[in-house]
Amino acid sequence: MSFAPNSIVTFTTDFGLDDPYVGIMKGVVLSLNRAAHVVDISHRIPAHDIVAAMLVLRSSYSYFPAGTVHVVVVDPGVGSRRRPLLMVSDKHAFVGPDNGVLSCVFQKERTVRVFHLTEERHFLKIVSSTFHGRDIFAPVAAQISCGTSPELFGPEIEDIVRIELPLPRRLGPNKLLGTILRIDKFGNLITNLSLDHLVGPRQSEGSNLRFKVSLGGRNILRLCQSYSEGMGEEPFAILGSADLLEISVNQASAAELLEAQATQEFEIEVL
Amino acid sequence: MSFAPNSIVTFTTDFGLDDPYVGIMKGVVLSLNRAAHVVDISHRIPAHDIVAAMLVLRSSYSYFPAGTVHVVVVDPGVGSRRRPLLMVSDKHAFVGPDNGVLSCVFQKERTVRVFHLTEERHFLKIVSSTFHGRDIFAPVAAQISCGTSPELFGPEIEDIVRIELPLPRRLGPNKLLGTILRIDKFGNLITNLSLDHLVGPRQSEGSNLRFKVSLGGRNILRLCQSYSEGMGEEPFAILGSADLLEISVNQASAAELLEAQATQEFEIEVL
Amino acid sequence: MSFAPNSIVTFTTDFGLDDPYVGIMKGVVLSLNRAAHVVDISHRIPAHDIVAAMLVLRSSYSYFPAGTVHVVVVDPGVGSRRRPLLMVSDKHAFVGPDNGVLSCVFQKERTVRVFHLTEERHFLKIVSSTFHGRDIFAPVAAQISCGTSPELFGPEIEDIVRIELPLPRRLGPNKLLGTILRIDKFGNLITNLSLDHLVGPRQSEGSNLRFKVSLGGRNILRLCQSYSEGMGEEPFAILGSADLLEISVNQASAAELLEAQATQEFEIEVL
Repeated sequence: MSFAPNSIVTFTTDFGLDDPYVGIMKGVVLSLNRAAHVVDISHRIPAHDIVAAMLVLRSSYSYFPAGTVHVVVVDPGVGSRRRPLLMVSDKHAFVGPDNGVLSCVFQKERTVRVFHLTEERHFLKIVSSTFHGRDIFAPVAAQISCGTSPELFGPEIEDIVRIELPLPRRLGPNKLLGTILRIDKFGNLITNLSLDHLVGPRQSEGSNLRFKVSLGGRNILRLCQSYSEGMGEEPFAILGSADLLEISVNQASAAELLEAQATQEFEIEVL
Repeated sequence: MSFAPNSIVTFTTDFGLDDPYVGIMKGVVLSLNRAAHVVDISHRIPAHDIVAAMLVLRSSYSYFPAGTVHVVVVDPGVGSRRRPLLMVSDKHAFVGPDNGVLSCVFQKERTVRVFHLTEERHFLKIVSSTFHGRDIFAPVAAQISCGTSPELFGPEIEDIVRIELPLPRRLGPNKLLGTILRIDKFGNLITNLSLDHLVGPRQSEGSNLRFKVSLGGRNILRLCQSYSEGMGEEPFAILGSADLLEISVNQASAAELLEAQATQEFEIEVL
Repeated sequence: MSFAPNSIVTFTTDFGLDDPYVGIMKGVVLSLNRAAHVVDISHRIPAHDIVAAMLVLRSSYSYFPAGTVHVVVVDPGVGSRRRPLLMVSDKHAFVGPDNGVLSCVFQKERTVRVFHLTEERHFLKIVSSTFHGRDIFAPVAAQISCGTSPELFGPEIEDIVRIELPLPRRLGPNKLLGTILRIDKFGNLITNLSLDHLVGPRQSEGSNLRFKVSLGGRNILRLCQSYSEGMGEEPFAILGSADLLEISVNQASAAELLEAQATQEFEIEVL
């Protein structure tokens, strides 16, 4: 099966919503594909934070129907020699800079072809060195969403920049070093630990998990099934919507309570 | 007349715009109804603030054309025993948790049928305990927007959670205790007083209203017809766009000037 | 050629995203034109900042396809005698208050006809004095996007409020006084200087530009081709995406570093 576009185009950027940049990109897409349906995923990626953008893309794109084109513009190297990319799997297409932001696609998609965007006739007539979202990525996304063949945009390449997320590190037979990947707006700490990491030596999957997280001077032992099971200001662990372990507080911010931040490491002992 | 969907789906949530949650819900809706037209009402409801979400829904939904499906996800009890609901009037459908957030619908809609969402075949295959917006509410909304009959989602029920907004309290023959319901981003204080409450004993509707609001150590006597009539830093009263009395300052924030906040009470004397 | 609508309607407002105001306007547009495609340009114009709104409109509208209707609601004079306007060129239509916010249109569009919106049968039935975005501008935009003839909305007029942006002032043979027009969310300072102002007496266009900007106690001599050429915390000049000179810092905020703000003036010497 090969990619068949459905005219949906998603945007993930660090442009924010104060400036006209997002509106301009939508205008460019609609000028080239009047039937395009542009959907905002987030424009509030922290400025220049490639990892945050990758995490947002990774957790959202596969919920869109097959045939969607995903544009990601977090691009501190705009105008430099970093390459503009098009990546196509059988279900989704991705457009953005070659700085690692699109590299999560290889984890979930079986066959991914990568193209270096070099064919300038598919760009806006004048390409600035400061706004490739407008001049390259939006017009390419619009044309892909119309059914233009990926091969027409430039040569196929293989050696793109990849970002590897930190994996949990083993500190002892039952002890791991985990990392906080991201903090969401409710203050939930989203970690890099999945269910597999939490099944202890004497446990079978499905039995009660027992562990101790040491974070911010506290020991967190409780695993809740829902946020509302949390009591008072007590932090607890929960398997979040991305199937990753989260540290949360019921109706309050675990990040504030524990003074935690993204990339922070913590110990977890499986009991 | 019975509900006939028009493929418009609105979203009101406390998810903010930093995280992928809203984008994911849009992806789910579009996966189930490619023709859906998703419209954001607000994703910046304060976290867990059910009353704020209800006020935003109440003041906006009826401006959408008949056949619109409104999804509201402010859901501190997600994953607990609180029920997921579908409500249908002849003009609008509503999807959200049974925590009172949808209860304003009974004030404006004549016939409202309420269904407890229990039929899991209409949900995503795996339902998390932390993100029913993605797993239950978005897929149900998408299917309702496609014309699936409400009866197919679960049993009809009647006893749902209702939130009663504070009503003005009479303190004396001409004196009322009002409440600030909400503060908008311009700093306007939106109160629970409507025109009916302001017509004094010797006044007929349409004559000049005269009253005294006591708030933040100030007496506010002036009623303006437009914001621009306000002078300097002087707070004034105005009948706002939701037909409720507002306290405002011309091109400045009444909330800051008067150090006022939502749920605060104040006295008003009709002269 | 005359204006032929394409059902795209853009919104630029200072309403923010916390309140239901934007959602209400979308509901009104969709109620009158079910096929409308509403696109947000920005709702985070600073409250009452007519110049900021004009700059956002000016830099974005022409990227939309011919036939788009642009609604701008930054309207501190709502409910006063300021007139509601419709402006139509051969490619775009514009709806908003007569406070100068739409006056940038004359710079880019050849033939512009201006209509004073007086025909109340095209408004919502009850027009408030506080929310013309809902009651006048959204319904008029919807009807224009459906093909209703501009002449039907009111008399053609000519004398509208115009905002003149500050032009660079000559201080000496090689010295100019420039102005910061706007600061974007990355902290880039967007000035009122274009390439024409920077070509010195002994330079021909295309040769290396050499100049000295004096701002915030610093001399800025370097002109970069891309943001990523900037080194460390050093501010530099760059020709931005709107073809205006910007002062920037690589992956940091020039506005913070230089404690600069919009409307601030600075000297530039062409060398």
